[in-house]
Amino acid sequence: MSLITVGTMAFDAIETPFGKTDKIVGGSATYVAYAASNFVKPVQQISIIGYDFPEEEMDELRSRGVQMDGVEIVKDKRCFFWSGRYHEDMNSRDTLVTDLNVLADFDPKVPDSYQGAEFLMLGNLAPKIQMNVIQELKHRPKLIVMDTMNFWMESAMSELRIVLKYVDMLLVNDAEARQLTGHFSLVKAAKVIMEMGPRYVIIKKGEHGALLFHDDEVFYAPALPIEEVFDPTGAGDTFAGGFIGYLAKTNDISFDNMKRAIIVGSAMASFCVEKFGPTRLKEITKEDIDARVQQFKDLVSFDIELV
Amino acid sequence: MSLITVGTMAFDAIETPFGKTDKIVGGSATYVAYAASNFVKPVQQISIIGYDFPEEEMDELRSRGVQMDGVEIVKDKRCFFWSGRYHEDMNSRDTLVTDLNVLADFDPKVPDSYQGAEFLMLGNLAPKIQMNVIQELKHRPKLIVMDTMNFWMESAMSELRIVLKYVDMLLVNDAEARQLTGHFSLVKAAKVIMEMGPRYVIIKKGEHGALLFHDDEVFYAPALPIEEVFDPTGAGDTFAGGFIGYLAKTNDISFDNMKRAIIVGSAMASFCVEKFGPTRLKEITKEDIDARVQQFKDLVSFDIELV
Repeated sequence: MSLITVGTMAFDAIETPFGKTDKIVGGSATYVAYAASNFVKPVQQISIIGYDFPEEEMDELRSRGVQMDGVEIVKDKRCFFWSGRYHEDMNSRDTLVTDLNVLADFDPKVPDSYQGAEFLMLGNLAPKIQMNVIQELKHRPKLIVMDTMNFWMESAMSELRIVLKYVDMLLVNDAEARQLTGHFSLVKAAKVIMEMGPRYVIIKKGEHGALLFHDDEVFYAPALPIEEVFDPTGAGDTFAGGFIGYLAKTNDISFDNMKRAIIVGSAMASFCVEKFGPTRLKEITKEDIDARVQQFKDLVSFDIELV
Repeated sequence: MSLITVGTMAFDAIETPFGKTDKIVGGSATYVAYAASNFVKPVQQISIIGYDFPEEEMDELRSRGVQMDGVEIVKDKRCFFWSGRYHEDMNSRDTLVTDLNVLADFDPKVPDSYQGAEFLMLGNLAPKIQMNVIQELKHRPKLIVMDTMNFWMESAMSELRIVLKYVDMLLVNDAEARQLTGHFSLVKAAKVIMEMGPRYVIIKKGEHGALLFHDDEVFYAPALPIEEVFDPTGAGDTFAGGFIGYLAKTNDISFDNMKRAIIVGSAMASFCVEKFGPTRLKEITKEDIDARVQQFKDLVSFDIELV
């Protein structure tokens, strides 16, 4: 099965309690691709980059089965750039710089070679851009997953509501779920989101794991208790990439398989936070991933019949 | 196996976003007893009450196998009274009133009839009082679990450090674990606590579940995603009561059995928050508990071998 992923390929400069980087490669679609390409090939990338995106990063991604036909290169502009500083809790951060650069012109086209993809991951972008991608597809994917953020709820809520009607799954964090619905209870928030369109909702809770909702079913995936989260940048996108990559590999969107996919996504995210940017994602092997998934099994498994 | 539980039997007046109560029965030892008595008899209560504690509540507890030989009745004073208001997130609250009343004189004695108990639950009290109880025991219990709170870390840290050397398990919430150790990472905090004395640490994270640590092992118990937490008062004590009650019933303190006990404790706590005070704990049956435990199994169970 093939997977289309739409999002940014960009630069970040990150400051955490543990250290600081200069500009390093980042962007939602970059993280999704590094994570998903462990499970499915091709990963069909849709993004926009400037003259400054490193050719060796493109080669590295290509060598992992990531196709670049849908990546527009703007010769006289620079990549999107974000700079931020994380607080001690690693859940909150201050944005120091946001330079849109090429992103201001992003009008994604779906190449013919991508048509027919069964899985679509819509990274966090303007809802209008997400909608355009859906409308460009000649064949409705089996599963469309979208990410979004508070910024679009504040600035483009009506467009966001439209996209929600066209997707199968919304992937947001707890604060975003609360903001989108006005409900503090995540169970209520998930119900309201499912009334907005998506049949599935994943609510990410950072170090507290993630919840998957569908009809009246719910699954609670833990996060691995980690001694030091070195850099959380990209963890959410890496989770999304592992999740949809595993679904695409197995070509099974049953609730039971989504549970497995969430564990795989959580495992990938747990690698991501170990080093700055996508560094760790480039190092890990299939054996590392299997061992990490086993850690998740051990973490939550118990047997009990009647009390 | 018998279980001694030490703590308050008291009155609370509670205000939540969903409603408000006048004085209702509460207190840590009350919740522990209601939860634990589903699993083990006798539950041997050590507490202090005033002339105003309802006789029918004592009868209700006795009918569940709770022994009252260790409960001192002060004829001319009133019970400990706490009044508080919960915020919307139900994790934080403001204390409106704290009337110590009889609690100012609490100098617990262990009755002869309680000697030989295999399990001891030390509710949140002054560390000096907790230590006195340990010293009154002629036979060292198989498992001593203690609760504490930030107040004692600020006002009686040196006494608290002493008690920690004598107990097997510390049961605290995430904020308390961080305050006690100065570490934001709960994994680090647990390690530091284990160096202070306890071989086991449970860190309760409210709606995000609980973590059990022992040596290099860790278990993540989820909390049930609940649409409305009606009243969280006593949930932590109910968790403790279910946990130690199940351990006492099974008389097995292996790590695997502690996992089961945490799920049982979580199930009991999930009942507690459904109504004001211990109301719901008096209604539930063994069948209700079994069904709730099954919900926890469904909530976290997944099967995956290799990715």
